[in-house]
Amino acid sequence: MKDVLARADAQTEAALARLFELIRIPSVSTDPAHDADCAAAAEWLVRDLAAMGAEARAVPTLRHPMVVAHLPGPRDAPHVLFYGHYDVQPPGDAVLWSRPPFEPSLTPGPEGETHINGRGASDDKGAMMTFLEACRAFIDTRGALPLRVSVLIEGEEESGSASLAPFLAEHAAELQADAILACDSDQWDAGTPAVTTMTRGICAQEITVTTADRDLHSGIYGNAARNALTAVLTDLLASLRRPDGGVAIDGFYDGVQELDPKVREIWSALPFDEAGFLSDIGLSHPAGETGRSVLEQVWTRPSCDIHGIWGGYADPGFKTVIPREAHAKLSFRLVQGQEPERIRALFQTHIRARLPADARVSFRDHTMGRATAMPVDSPWLTATLGALRDEWGRAAVAGMGGSIPILPLLKEAIGAEAVMVGFASLGNRIHAPNEKYDLSSFTRGTRSWVRILDALADVKP
Amino acid sequence: MKDVLARADAQTEAALARLFELIRIPSVSTDPAHDADCAAAAEWLVRDLAAMGAEARAVPTLRHPMVVAHLPGPRDAPHVLFYGHYDVQPPGDAVLWSRPPFEPSLTPGPEGETHINGRGASDDKGAMMTFLEACRAFIDTRGALPLRVSVLIEGEEESGSASLAPFLAEHAAELQADAILACDSDQWDAGTPAVTTMTRGICAQEITVTTADRDLHSGIYGNAARNALTAVLTDLLASLRRPDGGVAIDGFYDGVQELDPKVREIWSALPFDEAGFLSDIGLSHPAGETGRSVLEQVWTRPSCDIHGIWGGYADPGFKTVIPREAHAKLSFRLVQGQEPERIRALFQTHIRARLPADARVSFRDHTMGRATAMPVDSPWLTATLGALRDEWGRAAVAGMGGSIPILPLLKEAIGAEAVMVGFASLGNRIHAPNEKYDLSSFTRGTRSWVRILDALADVKP
Repeated sequence: MKDVLARADAQTEAALARLFELIRIPSVSTDPAHDADCAAAAEWLVRDLAAMGAEARAVPTLRHPMVVAHLPGPRDAPHVLFYGHYDVQPPGDAVLWSRPPFEPSLTPGPEGETHINGRGASDDKGAMMTFLEACRAFIDTRGALPLRVSVLIEGEEESGSASLAPFLAEHAAELQADAILACDSDQWDAGTPAVTTMTRGICAQEITVTTADRDLHSGIYGNAARNALTAVLTDLLASLRRPDGGVAIDGFYDGVQELDPKVREIWSALPFDEAGFLSDIGLSHPAGETGRSVLEQVWTRPSCDIHGIWGGYADPGFKTVIPREAHAKLSFRLVQGQEPERIRALFQTHIRARLPADARVSFRDHTMGRATAMPVDSPWLTATLGALRDEWGRAAVAGMGGSIPILPLLKEAIGAEAVMVGFASLGNRIHAPNEKYDLSSFTRGTRSWVRILDALADVKP
Repeated sequence: MKDVLARADAQTEAALARLFELIRIPSVSTDPAHDADCAAAAEWLVRDLAAMGAEARAVPTLRHPMVVAHLPGPRDAPHVLFYGHYDVQPPGDAVLWSRPPFEPSLTPGPEGETHINGRGASDDKGAMMTFLEACRAFIDTRGALPLRVSVLIEGEEESGSASLAPFLAEHAAELQADAILACDSDQWDAGTPAVTTMTRGICAQEITVTTADRDLHSGIYGNAARNALTAVLTDLLASLRRPDGGVAIDGFYDGVQELDPKVREIWSALPFDEAGFLSDIGLSHPAGETGRSVLEQVWTRPSCDIHGIWGGYADPGFKTVIPREAHAKLSFRLVQGQEPERIRALFQTHIRARLPADARVSFRDHTMGRATAMPVDSPWLTATLGALRDEWGRAAVAGMGGSIPILPLLKEAIGAEAVMVGFASLGNRIHAPNEKYDLSSFTRGTRSWVRILDALADVKP
């Protein structure tokens, strides 16, 4: 492996230049104003993969193109499918960024590390490129990969992946593989890698409540006229939460398994700093279900979050309006045993049952995806854990649960297990202003993939 | 009176042309982009009043100028101060207007009436001009008014009237009068005038809640991290409302008097169509306190309305963010016995007591004003009711409560009762898109003021 690892180290500067080019393309998938940028990011990846010798193309969809590529390897070696996404979250309020979100830079971090700054630096452009740079190091050193690699990079992960299911159905034969690899996840801490063996699912909904046929003046109608914001949206949304922090929808927890006591024991032995996890984001009290550890809450318990509310007068000054319309976006994070469609039905029934007189409600679907879990004795997992131990000199944490909504889709379509290894950290501020990726995540991530590819080549599927 | 009334009728076309000029000036006081328009509206009024022979000027304030004018009358006649406002509400979403809000027009209404369309057509430009046109008819016919009239027209009524109190304090001597007249209120129905003898007060607040030091990803933190929208704003705001529709703040109703049974009897005899009042705005169920009539609710009971909520991701698409900040604007309508400052303190105490761990709150004041009521045996009221009976051929309804936050300020500063007569209707959509004023409100309103001015001239203060 030394030759390939040396090559990976030697190419860091060129690899960073490539990553910067990709970050400069503002491929915000949820905003139609950035459609051309999404297409440009896909074309950039096609060119980069073709330069490595791949058979690569961008396939149009109803929204953003899918990048599909095949890199050859020995005929009798396993075949893996790598999944990534080239789209990014909207940058949000520009004034909250220290540097322009789409002008990447390197800056010294507070603890001696170096930050790669920019929207997508971590999620998922930086992470995705660790895999592609590992492939490049193999090909540049040995002329080929030690196993067959197909690549699927979508452009709608941050906006619901609507095109993914139909695309997988149509291209199922072409995308068959023995295992799926993904890198959209975190390492345990700066010195400890992690393999994500469980992910939470999601059921995302938008709700609109309307009352009167126009906005009203509260001086005349205040008290007598139903206010979409006061009486409806706040009451309805507040009704979703139990006093103990749980979700108050009837049947919501049906099918949710309590944590296996053995797993609980392993987790409680993990060097997890609950107070530090919260203080890193300016908080000091766990806000979720009382009586459950933070790890249990974020890994194996379902949750509900409101992502946005709007309605009425929000401009400077004051307007004594009784708004006729109120809106919210919210989602449920799901665990094993919770079907997204069933949760959606329970949620909508809950809201409809509490809707006051003179209020109407409509719902709109956003992302839906099931939770997943990987068998602990999977040979792909065993090989990956071994490769990570070789690179990092210590055991990787297996079991950490992130949330990749498209994972169940991929697993079903491909009919294979998914190995998720990521080198991001919670401090990366993904989806927030000032997103960054540590340079060490990028370089050690690339080295880790070199070792993982080598190890997976020996797995007998 | 016939000569003056005939003159008022004859000048209708010219009066409409003047009103249209004034509506064309987009004097939105809450929006700094319209500061020059507010100044232009003030100057327009100064010119119009000067043309009637008034000593008129626009006095600068920290925000928008005050128009002050004095029209002479017999030395021994009473002296009245007319109050109006030249500023208007923001038009809101342009696509909801059938016609541009600041391009006034006349169109046929559905029931044979004619509509004067435009922002401010009713509130308060159209209403205010009924008074000025009545003065003009007197002056043009007889050379002078039958009593002394001072005029105070402000430009901040729709945005909190912050300049009014300091202005009244500074100009108290100049503005002394025997009675105050205002016209920012409704008639009872198309054929019945009304004198507003009670108004509700207001306490308007803006609330900002912050939690983490950044926006978070719900896939990673969902459950464990306090969500400003989910856990805080919806819970806090929902806690303001009792299940029976009342306000759930401790002490909120202290000092609120139950309706006098005699008044309740008079009100229940009024030809008020509760179902029609609601169906006119697309509703069918009174939403406020159970067990109280709609009239009681909107005239003599305090209320709470949320006027706007914003926070998190509200753009197209979806973003699984846990927002760190949430905002709301809300106000309480107050009745006799409720001090705005005390209600503000109770509200802020209520919120602070319920604030969860890791949440911070800040408040911002908007409009504050006490409720008012007029003695039923006031000679000003008696004279006004007589004049209205002469014009309309039926008794006016006395007691109807609107809400004019600045009224208590004026009454205290001037040391006089306020007679509020207005010719607007609930269908005028004030503060909403497609505001209009009936042409008959404009012409009969002008005629009514001619008669009221004549009748008030005989009152012995």
